[in-house]
Amino acid sequence: MSSSAFTLHPQILQDTIEIGDLPLSHLRLMNDATYPWLLLMPRRVGATEIIDLDEADRAQLMVEIAGASKALRGLTGCDKLNVASLGNAVPQLHVHVIARFRSDAAWPKPVWGQVPAVAYSEEDASNFISRLRVALSIS
Amino acid sequence: MSSSAFTLHPQILQDTIEIGDLPLSHLRLMNDATYPWLLLMPRRVGATEIIDLDEADRAQLMVEIAGASKALRGLTGCDKLNVASLGNAVPQLHVHVIARFRSDAAWPKPVWGQVPAVAYSEEDASNFISRLRVALSIS
Repeated sequence: MSSSAFTLHPQILQDTIEIGDLPLSHLRLMNDATYPWLLLMPRRVGATEIIDLDEADRAQLMVEIAGASKALRGLTGCDKLNVASLGNAVPQLHVHVIARFRSDAAWPKPVWGQVPAVAYSEEDASNFISRLRVALSIS
Repeated sequence: MSSSAFTLHPQILQDTIEIGDLPLSHLRLMNDATYPWLLLMPRRVGATEIIDLDEADRAQLMVEIAGASKALRGLTGCDKLNVASLGNAVPQLHVHVIARFRSDAAWPKPVWGQVPAVAYSEEDASNFISRLRVALSIS
């Protein structure tokens, strides 16, 4: 594998399931049925901060955050969206888009570190990913 | 006060100190010396989600997030930036831009709910805000 190829951090690979590619970002589903939770990874080697992207990529990232947010809210009817780029533990630039409910396990706290992840069943993951692909026009 | 005027949520007013206005967002410093921490509030009445903004405002918000991020990193030399729009407790749309250090009180966790806020001295707040205004060309 070339050192200049875009690859995913092993922790992201372990915690998530592939959905597909948006024009800039690789999109994955966090394998945690507690919250409908997307991760967007801009396909730019070495980026750790949003400001590591150039201005055009940053604008495109906002377009993709908005698209992911609308798709997630449309499919889940959530009460609130949480959008965040943290990356203190996993340096590869990734943006969380999380559907929150007043009834969820962590509400009103941020989700990180609250309750252990609960893996999706294969069928539930597959169904949700199919609906996300349709909503986001990912083939 | 007109019902259509932009106003700040009382919790935001209580927790933060005014820095000034960017083209879209009102910018404030979180009054917590534990972390250099900015809040951006797009001046759009009733907005609670990034996707409540129209596409042009969302693009401008990204420009302002990037500007705030660069200013904060430039002034603090932080190890990492945390950028987030959560709003589970305070519904008014606000974006956190936080300078994180491997040595800070919450690292590597997100900052929310970790340690009580420590208010700035008047002099420290004033000095930091002055430097932020210069860095962000806020008069």
